[in-house]
Amino acid sequence: MKRETYDRRDALTIAYIGGGSRGWAWKLMSDLAAEGRLSGTVRLYDIERPAAEANAAIGNGLASRPDLVGAWRYEVSPSLDAALDGADFVVASILPGSFDDMASDVHAPEKHGIYQSVGDTTGPGGLFRALRTLPQYAEIAEAVRKSCPEAWVINYTNPMALCVRALYEVFPGIKAFGCCHEVFGTRKLLAAVAREELGAMDAEMADIEVNVLGINHFTWLDRASYRGEDLFPAYRSFIERHPEGFEEKGEGTWKKDWFSSAELVKFDLFKRFGLIAAAGDRHLAEFMPPWYLRDRETAAAWKFTLTPVSWRVENAKALRAKSAALASGQEPFALERSGEEGVAIIKALLGLGSFVSNANLPNRGQVAGLPLGSVVETNALFSRDCARPLMAGRLPPQVEGMVARHAANQETILRAALSGDARAALPAFMNDPLMTAAPAEAERLFGEMLANTSGALRPYYRGI
Amino acid sequence: MKRETYDRRDALTIAYIGGGSRGWAWKLMSDLAAEGRLSGTVRLYDIERPAAEANAAIGNGLASRPDLVGAWRYEVSPSLDAALDGADFVVASILPGSFDDMASDVHAPEKHGIYQSVGDTTGPGGLFRALRTLPQYAEIAEAVRKSCPEAWVINYTNPMALCVRALYEVFPGIKAFGCCHEVFGTRKLLAAVAREELGAMDAEMADIEVNVLGINHFTWLDRASYRGEDLFPAYRSFIERHPEGFEEKGEGTWKKDWFSSAELVKFDLFKRFGLIAAAGDRHLAEFMPPWYLRDRETAAAWKFTLTPVSWRVENAKALRAKSAALASGQEPFALERSGEEGVAIIKALLGLGSFVSNANLPNRGQVAGLPLGSVVETNALFSRDCARPLMAGRLPPQVEGMVARHAANQETILRAALSGDARAALPAFMNDPLMTAAPAEAERLFGEMLANTSGALRPYYRGI
Amino acid sequence: MKRETYDRRDALTIAYIGGGSRGWAWKLMSDLAAEGRLSGTVRLYDIERPAAEANAAIGNGLASRPDLVGAWRYEVSPSLDAALDGADFVVASILPGSFDDMASDVHAPEKHGIYQSVGDTTGPGGLFRALRTLPQYAEIAEAVRKSCPEAWVINYTNPMALCVRALYEVFPGIKAFGCCHEVFGTRKLLAAVAREELGAMDAEMADIEVNVLGINHFTWLDRASYRGEDLFPAYRSFIERHPEGFEEKGEGTWKKDWFSSAELVKFDLFKRFGLIAAAGDRHLAEFMPPWYLRDRETAAAWKFTLTPVSWRVENAKALRAKSAALASGQEPFALERSGEEGVAIIKALLGLGSFVSNANLPNRGQVAGLPLGSVVETNALFSRDCARPLMAGRLPPQVEGMVARHAANQETILRAALSGDARAALPAFMNDPLMTAAPAEAERLFGEMLANTSGALRPYYRGI
Amino acid sequence: MKRETYDRRDALTIAYIGGGSRGWAWKLMSDLAAEGRLSGTVRLYDIERPAAEANAAIGNGLASRPDLVGAWRYEVSPSLDAALDGADFVVASILPGSFDDMASDVHAPEKHGIYQSVGDTTGPGGLFRALRTLPQYAEIAEAVRKSCPEAWVINYTNPMALCVRALYEVFPGIKAFGCCHEVFGTRKLLAAVAREELGAMDAEMADIEVNVLGINHFTWLDRASYRGEDLFPAYRSFIERHPEGFEEKGEGTWKKDWFSSAELVKFDLFKRFGLIAAAGDRHLAEFMPPWYLRDRETAAAWKFTLTPVSWRVENAKALRAKSAALASGQEPFALERSGEEGVAIIKALLGLGSFVSNANLPNRGQVAGLPLGSVVETNALFSRDCARPLMAGRLPPQVEGMVARHAANQETILRAALSGDARAALPAFMNDPLMTAAPAEAERLFGEMLANTSGALRPYYRGI
Repeated sequence: MKRETYDRRDALTIAYIGGGSRGWAWKLMSDLAAEGRLSGTVRLYDIERPAAEANAAIGNGLASRPDLVGAWRYEVSPSLDAALDGADFVVASILPGSFDDMASDVHAPEKHGIYQSVGDTTGPGGLFRALRTLPQYAEIAEAVRKSCPEAWVINYTNPMALCVRALYEVFPGIKAFGCCHEVFGTRKLLAAVAREELGAMDAEMADIEVNVLGINHFTWLDRASYRGEDLFPAYRSFIERHPEGFEEKGEGTWKKDWFSSAELVKFDLFKRFGLIAAAGDRHLAEFMPPWYLRDRETAAAWKFTLTPVSWRVENAKALRAKSAALASGQEPFALERSGEEGVAIIKALLGLGSFVSNANLPNRGQVAGLPLGSVVETNALFSRDCARPLMAGRLPPQVEGMVARHAANQETILRAALSGDARAALPAFMNDPLMTAAPAEAERLFGEMLANTSGALRPYYRGI
Repeated sequence: MKRETYDRRDALTIAYIGGGSRGWAWKLMSDLAAEGRLSGTVRLYDIERPAAEANAAIGNGLASRPDLVGAWRYEVSPSLDAALDGADFVVASILPGSFDDMASDVHAPEKHGIYQSVGDTTGPGGLFRALRTLPQYAEIAEAVRKSCPEAWVINYTNPMALCVRALYEVFPGIKAFGCCHEVFGTRKLLAAVAREELGAMDAEMADIEVNVLGINHFTWLDRASYRGEDLFPAYRSFIERHPEGFEEKGEGTWKKDWFSSAELVKFDLFKRFGLIAAAGDRHLAEFMPPWYLRDRETAAAWKFTLTPVSWRVENAKALRAKSAALASGQEPFALERSGEEGVAIIKALLGLGSFVSNANLPNRGQVAGLPLGSVVETNALFSRDCARPLMAGRLPPQVEGMVARHAANQETILRAALSGDARAALPAFMNDPLMTAAPAEAERLFGEMLANTSGALRPYYRGI
Repeated sequence: MKRETYDRRDALTIAYIGGGSRGWAWKLMSDLAAEGRLSGTVRLYDIERPAAEANAAIGNGLASRPDLVGAWRYEVSPSLDAALDGADFVVASILPGSFDDMASDVHAPEKHGIYQSVGDTTGPGGLFRALRTLPQYAEIAEAVRKSCPEAWVINYTNPMALCVRALYEVFPGIKAFGCCHEVFGTRKLLAAVAREELGAMDAEMADIEVNVLGINHFTWLDRASYRGEDLFPAYRSFIERHPEGFEEKGEGTWKKDWFSSAELVKFDLFKRFGLIAAAGDRHLAEFMPPWYLRDRETAAAWKFTLTPVSWRVENAKALRAKSAALASGQEPFALERSGEEGVAIIKALLGLGSFVSNANLPNRGQVAGLPLGSVVETNALFSRDCARPLMAGRLPPQVEGMVARHAANQETILRAALSGDARAALPAFMNDPLMTAAPAEAERLFGEMLANTSGALRPYYRGI
Repeated sequence: MKRETYDRRDALTIAYIGGGSRGWAWKLMSDLAAEGRLSGTVRLYDIERPAAEANAAIGNGLASRPDLVGAWRYEVSPSLDAALDGADFVVASILPGSFDDMASDVHAPEKHGIYQSVGDTTGPGGLFRALRTLPQYAEIAEAVRKSCPEAWVINYTNPMALCVRALYEVFPGIKAFGCCHEVFGTRKLLAAVAREELGAMDAEMADIEVNVLGINHFTWLDRASYRGEDLFPAYRSFIERHPEGFEEKGEGTWKKDWFSSAELVKFDLFKRFGLIAAAGDRHLAEFMPPWYLRDRETAAAWKFTLTPVSWRVENAKALRAKSAALASGQEPFALERSGEEGVAIIKALLGLGSFVSNANLPNRGQVAGLPLGSVVETNALFSRDCARPLMAGRLPPQVEGMVARHAANQETILRAALSGDARAALPAFMNDPLMTAAPAEAERLFGEMLANTSGALRPYYRGI
């Protein structure tokens, strides 16, 4: 950012990398359209160019609507470098590989008794997704160094911690961080706790203050309060009051909504470890030994589901149809605040009001006890051209050990991914808590998953 | 703090240690009286009991005033332990020793060509003041451990960094920090810069965001912005525009007001080091070699004064008279917001809204490059039962070296003070940047100052 | 150590705590007897007083032998404090609890499918042994602080890392370290490698230089050389040449000798992780997931055994008989150098020649990447009144993660042990790599082991 | 080093950079000639080619001598890259700039009342020498990266710490360290102490064990012993016994020998700070405020001299003549062990015996309290392909502060030197303890010295 002040007349440039998955791009469009103090150009770049074109059509369609205050132009960029050239902000949200690759990530391990509820962050699936994704992040980092070294890079892609880690490894001077809404979900749950336990009928997420420390999707709260009231006693009582779990949208929602749960994993972790785990149960379960994922029945007993890739395929089709309808104007674009903080953070980085939210950043000491350099999740103060972590303290050892294990696995995967030697990730594969198979079987599975996804890996790895 | 929620009905206990100097106590009274969400008891303890009694009379006199929203009772405590017993907050603002001691601090070195503008933080005077003060802080720390280990301790006494350091050294589990308004002064100056350079006519201190890093009274800003606009270019231009300095209250104020300056030291430091020094010029000059304090004429050329202790004596008399008048009701107590943040911080620690301000806390990594454990000044987030520093980054080496030198001197003084061996502070005395005397003369001066203040030191040190 | 010089005439005092297990005490006696430059008194303290008395009789029996150069007197001390009073060195080698307790440690988990080859360091057995042992180490630390704060404390008791950790936790100023001969065993293996692969026919352990980093019994070498020649290629070739393992004392020794193995675990770890694991296979296997300890057959396939406690009972009986025979003079005491370095280290600490050997000490940065404060094993330079670690560098992430997991478990166990809340160790129990049981079953097992050993635990823990 | 073993037949390649100053090169030749286990080629590269040629002639002349065991061939290399190509070791000992430049370093400040005894490490002279030298070290680091990235680089050039620092800054993967014999001098003094105070008549430097911590030429011992006897009491007594100083080579030597002193500075520092400073008095005095260097008389009173550059000019002439005589065979080359450890260290790095000596290496934690990355001096274990620092602990604060000030100045100078902006070094110039001039005068002096040495600086700095 070379200029010093920002007002309505300034033309910002946001490069949006990926977004073919649609959902995230539309949320950003909605939020930008509702924000009157920013304007400029969004450059869309996706390896699937028609997806970018449809998004551009949708975005530009908004410009003429009288009910919107944000004036943005959407352009399709022919290349990564073209999209990044001189950009002020880079938003990255890519989906590397195909649904077939993802099917391997999630379902290939099932034949060996390893079940995953998401498969995009950790476990065998997260590892292979990382192997596909990180080489692309190395390319993004190099492109940012060349084309917009002063830009802020906001990452939404999973595996979050590893994507951000790779950006800093390749370009140590990058100004990048990762945003994740999972902590928001836990703060919403705590608002429900405040309503139910404290009688604070109008408690909302924004009233809930927390101290965040851990790694993305396996992050923890050692303090939480509602307007000055400690929520830990209330949370304990809430858990006792809900032995069958808590579902805000009605009992049994977890069976219908692939992203829901009854929070029973979170409650169990609290009883065992004394801290509030701050991510969805589907994510949390994957970071633990297979206590909650021994098999489908166990997961069901804990009231969460294993999202099948077939659903993702169906969902993608539906989104594609919707995209066409929106782009052609057949279907009107429904504006609503996304609940994401991306635009708020962009404003803060431009100096339009600072605020504290959780962010994924390299550890410089904000989490004592975890290795320096690992990407950790804590609160950070966003202000003009700054994303400054708060000193979050240290996890108790029984949690620190579990988190450190994943942090080390991530480092092993990173080195494998950046060295072009996919097999160097095998020790992380075998040291994953979900990996209960004996070594020989684990190695077989590693080989199968390598073969299944070899098309996506071959450009980046030797001997595949 | 054992209770979990706070509302108007709760009875807080604040122990106010010292306050015989009046000014600080009255500011707290004003601010408490204006704050409708807190109430309770303030226990006043001062070794000069009549001072505490007058303050109690003044404070209780406020309770009946209809224009005030805060309901507070003021009590005189017979002992430190009585004041602290079960307190929620401890505010410490003491003045150790007599004005004669202070006269030695400030003026004894002048005979050896060493001039000090304040003499309470660093230099020969700050060192001897520390020797008098720290043993009392060791007692306070022990008393807090015994009587209110969970209380928050807010320090206002100088030398700030060393007082806080001593509290943590003696009771590592203490929840203490130091508050200082010098950074506010610099933020006010930056608001003037924003008004003049950016045409932001209504810019105020609250609009100025800064990153703070250093040690108290020698702290620095490596970033400053006004509503998203970088103030460094503006500051540079402002300095050029004001070759004769800047005085908000009118040219020549520095000659009449002992606490004023024309900011020329600050401007010179910026030109030399590239960072904005964030304390009054009178303090800053004392941390440097005698560039600005070679003699009275040099100080005058830089447009700041050397506050004589004789003025402090006169001022104390005036305050005593005013205290009597206020206590007897002869003079009405004029309420006004002090501009200090003590009450706002108390509210934040009670969970009534979090906010970011500068604080003096042991270094756990928030300032990279300075020794761990040293008390540093950075921004911190105050929220429910938390004072959490922001990762402030690292000073450039040319500034870090100057700050590190004082941090090391402080550590030497601390060890001398807590070991009962005053002479062990001599190396810090001789390594002070103001100390230009040859070793033998420096040692003579050390001996003189020891003799001058032996009455106050004898209870705590061997062989005096 | 108050005196400054040591020669033959000086009377050293060594307090030997424990030793009822005999073997270690006899080794020390042998080594002291063979060392002509030291003399003095060994005070023996054991809760089983007859054991100490027999050892004293044996030790004093040596004094009259003309073939010995060391002049030592052996005394039985009536209490820990009496033994420590003014001691120069403290050697601790205790066996907390009974063989029944040990039978629970090792064999109770077998019913739940968890097999342990030693059960004294990690795994469920190591955890319970730690719960029994650490409160006694807290007492020793307090006694050292009171009776001989300047003494060097040499620990031989397992779990090694936790014993040393507890000493420093309770008395941070203690001068303590742990000695373990497992690294020697690996250096001996490497000498065999040098002989076989490099044709260095007279290669011995002393010729093998290594860099050690890790935690006791799970420590690693990232460099090893024989007189300047890198042994890593040789080790790789040696492993290929010995697909059935290597047994110096003859094929099949592992079936007869409870402490032997064919090094196949070590070889497998090298192939997987690229570093040389530096402890016996029986120990190494316990720190890993049950790759090598799935069941007895798996262990046998890897050619090591699960030492049954019944053997330890028999062995203890034999030692007791031998002790009686030695004490009465019926059987002559056979002197031989033990191969331990205790006496050499004592000499070095007295300034009689410095040398480098592996030691267990709190991490002050000697192993980057592992938490500060954890007790780590690295090389250290022993010299006059100093045990100074060498900067050992950092483990590669795939190994660091496995080691960090155990370091965190140790911290959890330490807190439980020092807080008197045995159940607080449960998370470490469940996070142990050997723990493959589902949570409910793991908890049952924890309860069983608690009940089995409640006699030994009750004095130290609440609610047992 | 690609090969794995070293014996007599192996052909090592040592690149010797610089050496035109002769003395160091001849010492290396002597030591190599006396070492029977190494052989190979020494490539000589000097910007003054005739100096290299004379050295080659001298070196090759040794090959035919029957009394020598080391077989070495000496070659002149035409370029830095040619010298380094595939080298196993690089020895750097350069003299950047001319004697006129050096005269400016040492004598220009005298007109402003600033006296320096050496002027090559710190003070105004050391700073300007660094500005001339570091850009060349940046070139060496780049050349090593390109031509022999696995070579060990041994530095002898001053300013030592900054030269090593620059190598690591430019090529972080370099294997470099600095060797300095000043600590040896202090160990020799301590041997004299042992002889005189302990009656240990045959005590030699090798019997003296020390713990080293600090920065080159301003390094300190917090422990020293002779065969197990603490030397601190003896040193104290020795100082009292020698109020007029100690000169091993006879009273008054300091007046005749430019490198001698009576150790009075070292003794005074001990009395003030309690540690043994471990460098020659001429170096130590320069790191302090001008206590010992107020003027020539003060230095004389402390019994050391200010080496004039005129002497260096004469000495260089004499060496040149001697070089010619040696090269032509007119004068026989007198072999004698140099007392330097370069060859011993080379042997250790080749795996031919490990040993502990002091070394200058980037701080990774071996000196707690000093900034990470700064080049510090501690003991290190040299062994096969390793230079591994010992954890040296922390300096007491009164010494740490003085050392940290110089470490920060070095960092400022480094940044100026590597950025091509010589004026960016001004803050370090003004923050040097010897700089007692007021800012304006200091700036004038900086300008003069810049002008004086502009010929040597112009190739590397903008605007000169």
